[in-house]
Amino acid sequence: MDNIQSINYPIYFNNSIAQLVNFVKQGNYSRFFILTDENTAQHCLPAVQQLLNDAGITNFDLIEINAGEESKDIDFCIGIWKMLIDFGADRQSLMINLGGGVISDLGGFAASTFKRGIDFVHVPTTLLSQVDASVGGKTGIDIDSIKNIIGTFAQPKAVFIEYDFLKSLPQRQILSGLAEMLKHGLICDADYWNQLKNSDLSRPTAELVYRSVEIKNEVVIEDPKEMGIRKSLNFGHTIGHAVETYSLLHDGGKNITHGEAIAIGMICEAWLSHKKIGMSEADLNEIVEVITRLYPKYHLEESWNAELFSLMQKDKKNQNGKINCTLLKKIGHYSIDNICTEDELCDSLRYYATL
Amino acid sequence: MDNIQSINYPIYFNNSIAQLVNFVKQGNYSRFFILTDENTAQHCLPAVQQLLNDAGITNFDLIEINAGEESKDIDFCIGIWKMLIDFGADRQSLMINLGGGVISDLGGFAASTFKRGIDFVHVPTTLLSQVDASVGGKTGIDIDSIKNIIGTFAQPKAVFIEYDFLKSLPQRQILSGLAEMLKHGLICDADYWNQLKNSDLSRPTAELVYRSVEIKNEVVIEDPKEMGIRKSLNFGHTIGHAVETYSLLHDGGKNITHGEAIAIGMICEAWLSHKKIGMSEADLNEIVEVITRLYPKYHLEESWNAELFSLMQKDKKNQNGKINCTLLKKIGHYSIDNICTEDELCDSLRYYATL
Repeated sequence: MDNIQSINYPIYFNNSIAQLVNFVKQGNYSRFFILTDENTAQHCLPAVQQLLNDAGITNFDLIEINAGEESKDIDFCIGIWKMLIDFGADRQSLMINLGGGVISDLGGFAASTFKRGIDFVHVPTTLLSQVDASVGGKTGIDIDSIKNIIGTFAQPKAVFIEYDFLKSLPQRQILSGLAEMLKHGLICDADYWNQLKNSDLSRPTAELVYRSVEIKNEVVIEDPKEMGIRKSLNFGHTIGHAVETYSLLHDGGKNITHGEAIAIGMICEAWLSHKKIGMSEADLNEIVEVITRLYPKYHLEESWNAELFSLMQKDKKNQNGKINCTLLKKIGHYSIDNICTEDELCDSLRYYATL
Repeated sequence: MDNIQSINYPIYFNNSIAQLVNFVKQGNYSRFFILTDENTAQHCLPAVQQLLNDAGITNFDLIEINAGEESKDIDFCIGIWKMLIDFGADRQSLMINLGGGVISDLGGFAASTFKRGIDFVHVPTTLLSQVDASVGGKTGIDIDSIKNIIGTFAQPKAVFIEYDFLKSLPQRQILSGLAEMLKHGLICDADYWNQLKNSDLSRPTAELVYRSVEIKNEVVIEDPKEMGIRKSLNFGHTIGHAVETYSLLHDGGKNITHGEAIAIGMICEAWLSHKKIGMSEADLNEIVEVITRLYPKYHLEESWNAELFSLMQKDKKNQNGKINCTLLKKIGHYSIDNICTEDELCDSLRYYATL
């Protein structure tokens, strides 16, 4: 597996932590800041610190936040900015985002706006962040639990994907990332979907992870600012994000992971694809079969629908309050810019509830 | 006076409000938000609203903040983001920043990060914002009174400079903008400096304002990200920003305007130019004579020096805690990247105190 070239930056796949140390040594940086949470501080940071120390690199400071989506709030971002000020970070500083999607989204935003932008790199430590958040140059933070409502388009200087970090990951976190991998197959690579479908997905192989990163990278290189094809990546996310935000607002997000929410969203939006743009019933059934085999059933109440719809309206992707969905023509072929009504969206949630 | 072309956007000088209305009418925008403060809401907004109404444009909302640098804090920015969310702003919305530098810096930052960036335009209403903040694509907000510590490089879609807005401006605000005009002459146009020196500066002519915008624009087009020549614009600002922030921290900024602080900074840094890089005593005396004729003397206490120096160290422009000044070789010729010691900087403040 070769390294992957993205928009002006490399994605390393082999000996990635050693590559990170090389990058740090060769760069003309005055200071380094490693952003971590308590999980990565325990499971991933020691290996990184050891290699940095071995290379004689000691001028770094740690910024540790709580794990979880709640840390993506603007208040935590202000906390990071203030720590950078207190540590005396200058424009030649480098931010190393060591963690999952919260760390890369939040750290990327904090870095891309600190003194109008300092360099940053991602070291994604979860399957979800390896196949999704770390590639594509989107940063984002939440306000009032509205996901990624504030952010920038800002490219990291490099991404270092260390497959071995996945070994310490709980099964539920593997499943969370797997939802994005399934999505990559569904939107544009039926062969990959078939490969996934027939694999033991309790621990996806490095080759499968690599293929997902390739697909994500191909899409964002073609359309970095989401004017067209990049919208394909939103499949499952219109409804999925609303379910995730609903959970975040009502139970602090404890009951559902990002991938579990996207799994629900993909089932609902597959149903919409069948009803609205003619995806076959066989494809719908296959998608539902694979996803329900992997993911636990989540109990959606009919009484939540009004609030779920209102959350969908606040989604960044929409214009003039109309809900804009990415659907599937068939497995492996996406279709963007499908306007869905409140009735259709609620019916798709009801379909999920009947499964 | 022709319109000026900047980095991918026009700067309008003639019939600017009518041009704004044209821009709004012709753009493919879903919604408009006008950011104002109580001063511009009183003096400038009515004329804008009248022309928008005459053109049948009614789908705009107003966001009004308190006038003054204190509104540039992150807390006010969060307030703007929340209002945009509540108003249902989508990615096709346009933010119209109607006001001085606080409005354009804050509104530009809020817009450039809302949903990863919506379009914005500037309608600068103060002399300072017309000749400085509205041109150049820098946005910024303050944290803990550290000026512009957070921001983005983001270009407006257009700038509309309405000279007539200056008629309602208090004399002190005219002087505040004039400091940047004097700077433009000092760093790169001795003829312009001589023109200014010999003019009645209680109300600079439209031609003088225009020339300042031209100079600022030429510099930022050549170096948008401040890698080299753009640093010339920092003349007077290393010490000036520290004095301004000191005042903001200790008296809410009531006792000094931006231009008054920059006037002090230009005198101190002219002295440093003479002492360190050989600017002639005649040039120093000429600069001091012109500035002290225009600006009131500000009383700097010796006991402030330690805090002023510490504020200079936190300035974005510096690396490794070293203070990096833009100085003058002679009137009309800048020199960037001059490292100054604490002793030298404090001596320059003492020089100012003796005048």
